[in-house]
Amino acid sequence: MTIETVETHKAHGGIQGVYRHRSAATGGTMTFAVFMPPRSDAPVPFVTYLSGLTCSHANVMDKGEYRKAAADLGIAVICPDTSPRGEDVANDDAYDLGQGAGFYVDATESPWAPHFRMWTYVTEELPALIAEHFPVDPSRQGIMGHSMGGHGALTVALRHPGRFRAVSAFAPIVAPMQVPWGRKAFPAYLGPDTANWRRHDAVALIEDGARVADILIDQGTADNFLDGQLKPELLKSACDAAGIPLTLRLQDGYDHSYHFISTFMADHLAWHAMRLKA
Amino acid sequence: MTIETVETHKAHGGIQGVYRHRSAATGGTMTFAVFMPPRSDAPVPFVTYLSGLTCSHANVMDKGEYRKAAADLGIAVICPDTSPRGEDVANDDAYDLGQGAGFYVDATESPWAPHFRMWTYVTEELPALIAEHFPVDPSRQGIMGHSMGGHGALTVALRHPGRFRAVSAFAPIVAPMQVPWGRKAFPAYLGPDTANWRRHDAVALIEDGARVADILIDQGTADNFLDGQLKPELLKSACDAAGIPLTLRLQDGYDHSYHFISTFMADHLAWHAMRLKA
Repeated sequence: MTIETVETHKAHGGIQGVYRHRSAATGGTMTFAVFMPPRSDAPVPFVTYLSGLTCSHANVMDKGEYRKAAADLGIAVICPDTSPRGEDVANDDAYDLGQGAGFYVDATESPWAPHFRMWTYVTEELPALIAEHFPVDPSRQGIMGHSMGGHGALTVALRHPGRFRAVSAFAPIVAPMQVPWGRKAFPAYLGPDTANWRRHDAVALIEDGARVADILIDQGTADNFLDGQLKPELLKSACDAAGIPLTLRLQDGYDHSYHFISTFMADHLAWHAMRLKA
Repeated sequence: MTIETVETHKAHGGIQGVYRHRSAATGGTMTFAVFMPPRSDAPVPFVTYLSGLTCSHANVMDKGEYRKAAADLGIAVICPDTSPRGEDVANDDAYDLGQGAGFYVDATESPWAPHFRMWTYVTEELPALIAEHFPVDPSRQGIMGHSMGGHGALTVALRHPGRFRAVSAFAPIVAPMQVPWGRKAFPAYLGPDTANWRRHDAVALIEDGARVADILIDQGTADNFLDGQLKPELLKSACDAAGIPLTLRLQDGYDHSYHFISTFMADHLAWHAMRLKA
């Protein structure tokens, strides 16, 4: 697999790059960002950050403020897009379906099935591509995300406990089957059989026996989506019942924006670094 | 003078806001960003950041990574726009003249004179507005900027030595009269009399006797504009001749982007804080 370099910039002693490649998983061109820390000639651990609704790779690259912490900790940060894109790719006028809203599933339904295969993209194709082209150590991977990307990070980690040594999220959707965003996207992408939905719902996965070592979640108390879409208490109950240590921090006065994410980004990268370097 | 709050977000323990007001100086609506650090009920020092060509208040707010350092140091950061804007405001198709390219001068020439009065805006109207609406201490002000905004910061500080206790710049235009950007903008905005240009040229101001206590400048060595437009060696010579202590740091491999600015932002804010809190 080949990749094309779109741009690179020295930043905080490392290199922030943007790359493009032809994706077999999604059947189109995908763009992603990679930050490599300084002195990364030897393989370094890496954390994949999954973004939320409406975002591309660029939002967290611009506003996430992850580079200083990643440089200090010596970990790479990978930022994929949230969906396939392009004129030949199905879309919807709503912000929460179609391009920019892939929900990290492999769609089975029309018109989404041909391209919307973000599950395969982020769990198989992209990690292999990163391992091929960058000096990273695939045995030391973490995953994190925001909102829809927090949903992605939790479900990917729960279904790959041997692969991801650390998982964290900012204001994640923890139970998509129980909230409007998921109850719209899951039938559209996955069809009516709720058994397929449960494999993409963190709370349901835990109820069905999936486990991770521990989870860090930050959630702002001034987040407009807290009560209607995010409901971290559902994950708390599931983790308590399953014996999964969940560090759930309610952050007073923070909203759903990158101002919240950037404030706690260094804490999350430190959480990952501790587990990836153990 | 009244201001309208466009948005506020809690960030790094403080508040990042965007505000709008009717400007007497520019005869239109101006937008600016303010970050207030935590526990800022008592008046805090503040630093004004002047942005470069094509930027608005939003570029540094999104990509400048100043909030953590400003919060830790207890200083406010003010980010104005780079020009008046709007359909009734003169413009030019080029990126380096007109809207987004005010060059921090009061234009005397047509069609710019009615609105392009960024000198008065950033030296008089905006500081008064900030002092009226935010808990800042106007006796402890610093000024910094990038590229065209570095030019602005240097000239504003050189002409107000009693007002600004600290000045720094990222990749500034130090001698606009000697480079293409200034040799295009100055006649357009200020007319043919070069005596008027000298009052907006940092090197010329120093040659003509203006002084500041000291200056910090970071300049990337991979900056595409280094040789043609920035020429920090001209400022070095002028400062050496005038006995102004200039800390000029050539940063290996950094370009002209916010990846460069964000890397050294905390150093600059620490430079300002040391002088503003002395």
